[in-house]
Amino acid sequence: MINSRYAWFEESLKKIALLASVGGVLAWDQETGMPPDAVGIRSQQAGILSGITHEMRTSQALQDCVEELLNDSSLTPYQSVNVKEFHRTLQKSIRLSKEFVEQLSLTVSAAYPAWYQAKTQNQFDIFAPHLEKIIALKKEEAQLIGYAKHPYDALMDEFEPGFTVDDADRLFTDMKTSLLPFTKRIASQTQPNDDFFRQPFDSFSQKKFGRSLLTAMGYKFSSGRMDHSEHPFCIGLHPSDVRVTYRLNPNDLSEFIWGLMHEGGHALYEQGLQTKYWGTPMGSTVSLAIHESQSRFWENNIGRSAPFWKYWFPVLQNTFPDAFKNSDFQHFYVGINRIAPSLIRIQADELTYHFHILIRYQIEKSIFEGNLSVNQIPTVWNNLYKEYLGLDVPNNTSGVLQDVHWSHGGFGYFPTYSLGSFYAAQFFHALSAQSPIQEWLEQGQLQPITTWLNENIHSKGMELSANELCKKITGESLNFAYFMQYAQQKFNPIFNLS
Amino acid sequence: MINSRYAWFEESLKKIALLASVGGVLAWDQETGMPPDAVGIRSQQAGILSGITHEMRTSQALQDCVEELLNDSSLTPYQSVNVKEFHRTLQKSIRLSKEFVEQLSLTVSAAYPAWYQAKTQNQFDIFAPHLEKIIALKKEEAQLIGYAKHPYDALMDEFEPGFTVDDADRLFTDMKTSLLPFTKRIASQTQPNDDFFRQPFDSFSQKKFGRSLLTAMGYKFSSGRMDHSEHPFCIGLHPSDVRVTYRLNPNDLSEFIWGLMHEGGHALYEQGLQTKYWGTPMGSTVSLAIHESQSRFWENNIGRSAPFWKYWFPVLQNTFPDAFKNSDFQHFYVGINRIAPSLIRIQADELTYHFHILIRYQIEKSIFEGNLSVNQIPTVWNNLYKEYLGLDVPNNTSGVLQDVHWSHGGFGYFPTYSLGSFYAAQFFHALSAQSPIQEWLEQGQLQPITTWLNENIHSKGMELSANELCKKITGESLNFAYFMQYAQQKFNPIFNLS
Repeated sequence: MINSRYAWFEESLKKIALLASVGGVLAWDQETGMPPDAVGIRSQQAGILSGITHEMRTSQALQDCVEELLNDSSLTPYQSVNVKEFHRTLQKSIRLSKEFVEQLSLTVSAAYPAWYQAKTQNQFDIFAPHLEKIIALKKEEAQLIGYAKHPYDALMDEFEPGFTVDDADRLFTDMKTSLLPFTKRIASQTQPNDDFFRQPFDSFSQKKFGRSLLTAMGYKFSSGRMDHSEHPFCIGLHPSDVRVTYRLNPNDLSEFIWGLMHEGGHALYEQGLQTKYWGTPMGSTVSLAIHESQSRFWENNIGRSAPFWKYWFPVLQNTFPDAFKNSDFQHFYVGINRIAPSLIRIQADELTYHFHILIRYQIEKSIFEGNLSVNQIPTVWNNLYKEYLGLDVPNNTSGVLQDVHWSHGGFGYFPTYSLGSFYAAQFFHALSAQSPIQEWLEQGQLQPITTWLNENIHSKGMELSANELCKKITGESLNFAYFMQYAQQKFNPIFNLS
Repeated sequence: MINSRYAWFEESLKKIALLASVGGVLAWDQETGMPPDAVGIRSQQAGILSGITHEMRTSQALQDCVEELLNDSSLTPYQSVNVKEFHRTLQKSIRLSKEFVEQLSLTVSAAYPAWYQAKTQNQFDIFAPHLEKIIALKKEEAQLIGYAKHPYDALMDEFEPGFTVDDADRLFTDMKTSLLPFTKRIASQTQPNDDFFRQPFDSFSQKKFGRSLLTAMGYKFSSGRMDHSEHPFCIGLHPSDVRVTYRLNPNDLSEFIWGLMHEGGHALYEQGLQTKYWGTPMGSTVSLAIHESQSRFWENNIGRSAPFWKYWFPVLQNTFPDAFKNSDFQHFYVGINRIAPSLIRIQADELTYHFHILIRYQIEKSIFEGNLSVNQIPTVWNNLYKEYLGLDVPNNTSGVLQDVHWSHGGFGYFPTYSLGSFYAAQFFHALSAQSPIQEWLEQGQLQPITTWLNENIHSKGMELSANELCKKITGESLNFAYFMQYAQQKFNPIFNLS
């Protein structure tokens, strides 16, 4: 018997997802090739669309329907997941008025080009008034949504359901205790030479290599495309339309490969969602940290490992014979695993990276505690880079203006990057215990890895929470020890540490 | 004093235009680089968007508002234009239900890839069932909208307001009387050699030349972009975002330049609309024929003229020194003005072109008279190509499947192409009488031409009807004699006719 109330509910969710995916096309276009003069009209287009979507999501009819379905005992398990999860997020959404959502959308659409200009011209002042407005709106949002202990909890919950300041403080304290001394010890060693990156690598060949790599990973170009953008991203509009972007420097290969593998990891998650559930929680990704676990898994656990490059280094040598004629495998492998504090988060190595995140976390937390005004942010930023990474920040372009996230209003987002790496290490440990992954990698077989991720993670949608999923796959909740163990097992031999 | 009813009316129109422009982004994306697997979800995205737009356009509140404004004597002249023109089109729209509009949108979204596949594989049968559905819906549309004499009038009116089968029959009879013998006489002459087109012309240099040319014409790349697509088009989302596409063959220069000038002419019209009126009739293009007059003006009256190439041929020689080292100006000029019947409309010369249109007009008219079924179309098509152009059509790919229009449901569109050329000739005559256009062209000054078009046509929006506009600029209504005169003055010397 068809449950017609449930059917209407699901149809409504799919309509909302359709409109949201249209907004995704606008966002992709804006960051890949929209004419610059169109920025004004684009923010209006995005604004009206998110207004309509919000109205549909929060309509009284849908609210009433969901409330009734919550008590409907005839629902199948997947239907229950969809109803409960939608109800959870709806409770948050209905606290935001259509006007508030439109206002936020207009504000961030105008902020993006200002951030871009500020970054290009090293003028924080150009971005500051936009940032002020965004922070004011996000503070209002935290109050409207509500929280138990800390306003920043309300914002993090949007990206990582249930994750709180208490959790983050515990996690980052743990990290400071074990990872900070380990990283400082490694960073103080003589670092391997990676000058081989700084040579001419023609753009066409880089893209060709990238396409081969993504294809080997199982990314379907018939359901995707790759383009250049200022800040690489992946956007999943539907499992049949998942787009990645890259940065490309014809004189430095390092900017391209790992960024692309990172976005490729995200893209495999989006392409691996079940089409039949599209638009509902069962066809959606669990959380940003789990999303990031997929990208970090490919970028670092796979993409900076010895067995992976055993197969791919010869391919790279064939692609760029001039650049790699004097390079051998070992030289290349240690070169791609330098550990050195640096200014730019997206260029950071896989250990110092997490201190970039810690800095952003501390700043965001202070902002929402009301202890930090916009004009103080650059100074605090620079002080923290000195404290954790020992670096002097020479200008705001390579400091506080480097990331796009704040221009999008994405406060609470950064911590999920570190969580993602920690989940990735734990998943990698589980896969290693269950499969001959070393052999696969040495033979260039990436598809079995994608199949495992697909079966265990991608296809599950939101059937389980991030924590439940982690327990099911690895037998326990997220445990920072796996990341430390991974780091020690990998870097001790590279740096001849005991 | 602010007229708040009018203000609400205008705001509603701008919201509708915003959503329609979002649909434009989807359409552009679909034809330039959307992943092929996404075609299913894209048709749903386009469908829901046009449904919402139609609902807003035909809402009772807006209908009531417009009815009241029709009798509001306090409106300014530009406000009156907006109210009257919107009322005219609304009367047609409200006869189509939201379900009908969504159905049509879904049908054409699915038909486009089928047409593409059918064309690629030379299999009319793949497209035929889609074409059946579209024709059935367009017949229904003609009945729903209503017409005085002929169902096809209802469809043509959508593109060229007020233009009827009677008008078209008169026009094409005129054309057959004078242009057909003239064209046949020229086509029977020895044609100039244009082998210079069939050489290697690297893609990068073609695009670079194209960008220079568009820039000289006054096209603003800060408010536009150019991309490759199967069938060249121009799409104006807003004066700040007007995109053109091109076809490019690295072994045949002729496919690129004039197609790009054609789309550039359309784009100048869209970029030249007044931003303050955007979304209302005062900020919209008058009709498709006037739109086409702008593209044909640049493609033919300018782009195939001697004085234009006096300046640009040396630029072309510098861009492609190898290809043009053995070519002189006169050789090039007569070569780009060959008159020879050919199978493909978009590659046709500027005289035989109009018989391609006549054939499509006759077929469409028969379809909507109910005298032609889908499976008969290829045969009728081929017979007409024999009759007017003396050609045997070897396959449907270069026959009935060559144009994208029917897959979009664009019946009634083709006649505007010929009308456009006839308007262009009449406008060109007026501009020539008022300005030293020959000198401008020989000196490479294209901007004064764009300024004239902008002042007289682009910036006017729908202030005047096509016919009124033509009378204002040229002193009389559309008169086929101007095209004949233009053709004779140009081609008699080239072919040494008296």
